[in-house]
Amino acid sequence: MPSGTHRVAVVGVGQTAFGALPHPPRALLRQSIHEALASVDKGISPQDIGEGYLATLGFGGWQIGNPASLLGEELGLPGLPVSHVENACASGSTGLRQAYHTLLAGAADVALVAGVEKMSDTPSARRRYWLGVSGETEWERLAGLTFAGVYALLAERYLAERKLTTDVLGAVAVKNHAHGALNPHAHLRKPVTMEQHHAAASVADPLRLYDCCPVSDGAAAVVLAREEVARRFTDTPVWVVGSGGGSDFLALQDRESLTRLPATRRASDEAFRHAPFGREKVQLAELHDCFTIAELLALEDTGLFPEGEGPRATTEGRTRLGGALPVNVSGGLKSKGHPLGATGVGQVCEVFHQLRGEAGERQVKGAERALTHNVGGSGATAMVHLFST
Amino acid sequence: MPSGTHRVAVVGVGQTAFGALPHPPRALLRQSIHEALASVDKGISPQDIGEGYLATLGFGGWQIGNPASLLGEELGLPGLPVSHVENACASGSTGLRQAYHTLLAGAADVALVAGVEKMSDTPSARRRYWLGVSGETEWERLAGLTFAGVYALLAERYLAERKLTTDVLGAVAVKNHAHGALNPHAHLRKPVTMEQHHAAASVADPLRLYDCCPVSDGAAAVVLAREEVARRFTDTPVWVVGSGGGSDFLALQDRESLTRLPATRRASDEAFRHAPFGREKVQLAELHDCFTIAELLALEDTGLFPEGEGPRATTEGRTRLGGALPVNVSGGLKSKGHPLGATGVGQVCEVFHQLRGEAGERQVKGAERALTHNVGGSGATAMVHLFST
Repeated sequence: MPSGTHRVAVVGVGQTAFGALPHPPRALLRQSIHEALASVDKGISPQDIGEGYLATLGFGGWQIGNPASLLGEELGLPGLPVSHVENACASGSTGLRQAYHTLLAGAADVALVAGVEKMSDTPSARRRYWLGVSGETEWERLAGLTFAGVYALLAERYLAERKLTTDVLGAVAVKNHAHGALNPHAHLRKPVTMEQHHAAASVADPLRLYDCCPVSDGAAAVVLAREEVARRFTDTPVWVVGSGGGSDFLALQDRESLTRLPATRRASDEAFRHAPFGREKVQLAELHDCFTIAELLALEDTGLFPEGEGPRATTEGRTRLGGALPVNVSGGLKSKGHPLGATGVGQVCEVFHQLRGEAGERQVKGAERALTHNVGGSGATAMVHLFST
Repeated sequence: MPSGTHRVAVVGVGQTAFGALPHPPRALLRQSIHEALASVDKGISPQDIGEGYLATLGFGGWQIGNPASLLGEELGLPGLPVSHVENACASGSTGLRQAYHTLLAGAADVALVAGVEKMSDTPSARRRYWLGVSGETEWERLAGLTFAGVYALLAERYLAERKLTTDVLGAVAVKNHAHGALNPHAHLRKPVTMEQHHAAASVADPLRLYDCCPVSDGAAAVVLAREEVARRFTDTPVWVVGSGGGSDFLALQDRESLTRLPATRRASDEAFRHAPFGREKVQLAELHDCFTIAELLALEDTGLFPEGEGPRATTEGRTRLGGALPVNVSGGLKSKGHPLGATGVGQVCEVFHQLRGEAGERQVKGAERALTHNVGGSGATAMVHLFST
């Protein structure tokens, strides 16, 4: 890395409610962008935006190719340089990483990153294809493995290796549902008990209904600015202070382990390499919990907890709001919802509000440093970002 | 832009032949990546690569989600931070722009950009969808307009406004076919005459068969390095010295003009803003000629020729190999072929060989400065890049 600053400011965020919504993707996108612009404390004009990134899988095939141009249309800036980025469920954080690099390079002063997905009105066969295609195709999807089935294999191996019961999965579900119940933007605003978790239908053994995130619609947008111009837009920016990426084999069978995601490890190591603080200083984390097992994997793969500590930290309540390191206080993908392309951008919205002390009932007291983690597919791509006040 | 250098080196390139090929996309990708690595003069190890970008539309739906992870798999580096980028037919140059920013930011020393598309074995109904979706959907594709039909509207208006005949379209076709006949990697290695052009079947009036690029398979890859490390890999790098992007309304009906592409104008202005040379110094250009009319538009929208000069420059032979400013000496999309995601990356391969004097029969003598131009859809996105020895 060159000398000089590695900071970029988040100066505004916007997010639709996540859920089964009647709106088309373009309307969701519009709402999130306009909210993000309106949220900038000292005001911002669309003309201030110098580059745009759109994160979406175009779930179900939403009939629009070349979709990044919608950013310019919605901003009233039909000239804006734009890019469509996509890394399966990690698309949102991939857009964030691109924007971060572009601003560090000085190629623009201000960038917009928006993510959107419309999943709820897709016929179920098509939905299975679009979910399954984010895993591996030849040996997994076409052999009949669903996407929940892929994570079920990881969960089964994890529980067996560590001699644990599904109570630990239930503990993640109960916690994230409790958090999501406090979030007005969450898809599932409904606490669940351990008894409800255990009694729910099996989706892919050992994963039951409350181990799985919902199928959500939604959009999120963030406005980022170079450090040199950030104070023109707000006196209380939230700084992006680290970005890391990683990848892995698509197929589970090609990987060394079923209970570690090396893509997350690589991403986390890179993010912390140049960051102004270490893992022990992180005060809240939004981790990719598309299934409860994914949060357990991420607790250790990010290095936030030492190897073997994730389950105990969870069952002891250390990752709960009020615990030593609250994880997914937004509700996470599990309860807040998972509109694929919007998810990684929505994590930044949560962190922005938390680090500015604006998170209401789910505020992590005194939070100054946060981590976001976003996984593509079953771990073939991953991104980690670090934030501070 | 910050002070300091804005140069990034191209240190290696690889490209499959373009054409109707039997290979699956992954095999094409592999070939282009391995050729790019092997082409680096002083050698390179996959471990030197710090970030990867994959450009593809996944034409026809090639059954692999999260495809950027294939870059790591093919390099034997299943940890590499990777991103899948997509701006319709401008995807390849969008990957180049991202990599350029990432290297300027110092986030990596070396990056790989690869593009791939497999189009030839897609059923025709599906092909119509995938081609059409790059234009506008609600008012164009679903109303029955084909993608050739979109460009035919532009051509019709252009010829009418300028009081020209289809001879000027034919002149582009004849020139680019003559160039492509000299390129061993071209899809259509076949000169055509003006008589053949005029006698060919109408595709979408006024566009005839030889006005349209073929449906091609292929892949291309380039290795880029920060200036600080470039000499470790070669003594004769080709420098990327400018990058510009632009966008526009998706639908033709929303645009101010049918005979200008403002996205190209915005992209070209940005690329030249910080470049060490002006438009008058460009010695060869690879312009996006998916249809012959597209090259005519680009001649002026890039600013390489003054408004109104494009047709005469073409018919007088100024854009031919041996002319004052040869355009599409590779054969262009028209004759070299247009495997969507690979196209913008393939343009860089051509420029690399030209600026190093390695282009054989189609060498532009003494070429030291070049421009590439890549359009998404009917102009809703566009990228322009500048190169020098």
